[in-house]
Amino acid sequence: MTAKTHSLERMIFFSDAVIAIMLTLLAVELPVPEVPDPLHLWGALAAHGSEYIAFLISFCVIAATWTAHHMLFVHVSRTDPQLITLNLLALLGYVLIPWASKTLGKVPNGAGVIVYATAMTFLGATMLLVLRHVVRSGLLDPTAPRGVISGIQAWSAMTTIMFALSIPAGFVLGRWTM
Amino acid sequence: MTAKTHSLERMIFFSDAVIAIMLTLLAVELPVPEVPDPLHLWGALAAHGSEYIAFLISFCVIAATWTAHHMLFVHVSRTDPQLITLNLLALLGYVLIPWASKTLGKVPNGAGVIVYATAMTFLGATMLLVLRHVVRSGLLDPTAPRGVISGIQAWSAMTTIMFALSIPAGFVLGRWTM
Amino acid sequence: MTAKTHSLERMIFFSDAVIAIMLTLLAVELPVPEVPDPLHLWGALAAHGSEYIAFLISFCVIAATWTAHHMLFVHVSRTDPQLITLNLLALLGYVLIPWASKTLGKVPNGAGVIVYATAMTFLGATMLLVLRHVVRSGLLDPTAPRGVISGIQAWSAMTTIMFALSIPAGFVLGRWTM
Amino acid sequence: MTAKTHSLERMIFFSDAVIAIMLTLLAVELPVPEVPDPLHLWGALAAHGSEYIAFLISFCVIAATWTAHHMLFVHVSRTDPQLITLNLLALLGYVLIPWASKTLGKVPNGAGVIVYATAMTFLGATMLLVLRHVVRSGLLDPTAPRGVISGIQAWSAMTTIMFALSIPAGFVLGRWTM
Repeated sequence: MTAKTHSLERMIFFSDAVIAIMLTLLAVELPVPEVPDPLHLWGALAAHGSEYIAFLISFCVIAATWTAHHMLFVHVSRTDPQLITLNLLALLGYVLIPWASKTLGKVPNGAGVIVYATAMTFLGATMLLVLRHVVRSGLLDPTAPRGVISGIQAWSAMTTIMFALSIPAGFVLGRWTM
Repeated sequence: MTAKTHSLERMIFFSDAVIAIMLTLLAVELPVPEVPDPLHLWGALAAHGSEYIAFLISFCVIAATWTAHHMLFVHVSRTDPQLITLNLLALLGYVLIPWASKTLGKVPNGAGVIVYATAMTFLGATMLLVLRHVVRSGLLDPTAPRGVISGIQAWSAMTTIMFALSIPAGFVLGRWTM
Repeated sequence: MTAKTHSLERMIFFSDAVIAIMLTLLAVELPVPEVPDPLHLWGALAAHGSEYIAFLISFCVIAATWTAHHMLFVHVSRTDPQLITLNLLALLGYVLIPWASKTLGKVPNGAGVIVYATAMTFLGATMLLVLRHVVRSGLLDPTAPRGVISGIQAWSAMTTIMFALSIPAGFVLGRWTM
Repeated sequence: MTAKTHSLERMIFFSDAVIAIMLTLLAVELPVPEVPDPLHLWGALAAHGSEYIAFLISFCVIAATWTAHHMLFVHVSRTDPQLITLNLLALLGYVLIPWASKTLGKVPNGAGVIVYATAMTFLGATMLLVLRHVVRSGLLDPTAPRGVISGIQAWSAMTTIMFALSIPAGFVLGRWTM
């Protein structure tokens, strides 16, 4: 391995470690249901419903984002200082997800939605910056299938816009529930 | 390394990171015993007995599952998008174990057993899906010893069925302890 | 890489991930000092002294144990099912350290010492089993320097005996402080 | 891979795992804002402002330190027992950051600054020891660009001195706020 590919391996490994920890921590703070007896289990779980649903949404979004990251980096052939910086910015987005997810589950009015959607929009935007840099600076393997790369870009842009639109939706939700 | 084996390495690494974190977190939340003096240590530990036993059961089940995963993936030669998705589904099962284990330790009636057995059944079922996909889609190394693969399948099926049968047992236990 | 060395890599990686997480979690639960003003900082830190000292002891013991593990496995050339099982047993010892360390810091009488020394003795004993198996079953590289291996064995035996002797010492301490 | 480079890989991997976990845990303990309604979100976030700012400072400092570590170790060609020991000392500094960061966010008077600056100074000093050892003991690749290495040294020295100077500043701040 040359120093360049070695540097790329370490960056990918470091990102994966952060994402793996974050994904595991998402579930660790889930509330233990207080169940008087087995027949009331469903009700006890439903009492923490918003927290369990927030966890499931976060897990699915992060799993999909990791898959996109995985599919992209199979075709990245080297790294540069800017990619390392942009990737660290994306990691800042990732590590905030458990906190944002907890806020979504615990703050019932629209404010939870706003915090969560803002964190997800930030994460999406950093992913788009990583994608743009990788494509523009020629860090991609020349044999990378263009269709896959544009598919990842389209998916990232779409989810980022969707979360960005949820921010004002949170304000509307807040007014509506009051 | 080709892009295909590289992709497999990263998937295995990511799974191992999630399982390692989960295994470590299992023990971190164990209650500290309140011991008035050393001679009452055993009693103080016994007061949290169900939580310590829940931890030990989880550790052993996960250690056995990881060993099976390890023995299987030594013979897997490449990955495909479906395997990545099924593996992420298995990771969803893994990350829920600390929460299920805590519930088993803290909810004394049958409800804890139901939550725990459901999580374990889900994890077992995802492992069976991974196994079936790996065998059917020809992702296995042609030199893989068939005996080992069927051994892993039999073990996975057996533990999954055992946990699935514990779900109704939890309801019976609940009725019996009331 | 052959399947055998690949299997060894994965086992080492998995162990390192568990130890790294455990080492980081040791420090995360350290109490935040309540300091009225900077001049009373030392007193506020001293009030949690036993917890900070328990952390430092654990960090040093684990760092030394990891170094021994590292020095040993540089010379291990392959794995077998028994080594994987013994290594998982050692990981059970590792993941219990944060809990044992917290108990040492929080339970002031000899009981904390007993729990901690028991966990450390268990970890030491599993390391000795790993060492014995690696040497007896010919898993070592033939070029492995015998002096280094016996040095690691001597060090492991010594620390294990030391911790084993601390268990009765905890009972004496308990009687003495009452 | 020879045993020497293998040993280096494992040391780098172990450090990255510790840093990745620490970075993720930094964000996990962030307080969930208590927001009565979306329009008061900003005020609710501002109430925990010092904790959020402490997190952001820590994230940026650690990200920069990791980048420096990354840029250095691309050019390190082998390890020795002393480097492993110095690196473990640096890891002791790293694992203390979440605790120091929490103290900075929660202890409002100068004491929080003192604890945080001391932990950062310790981390910086260990990094300088690692750097000095790597350069003096000839562990660097002969092709390593001298400019990059002195740049990392200058940056590490500067940030370490800056944090060291913050320690007395904390005492002054404490007197000033009383």
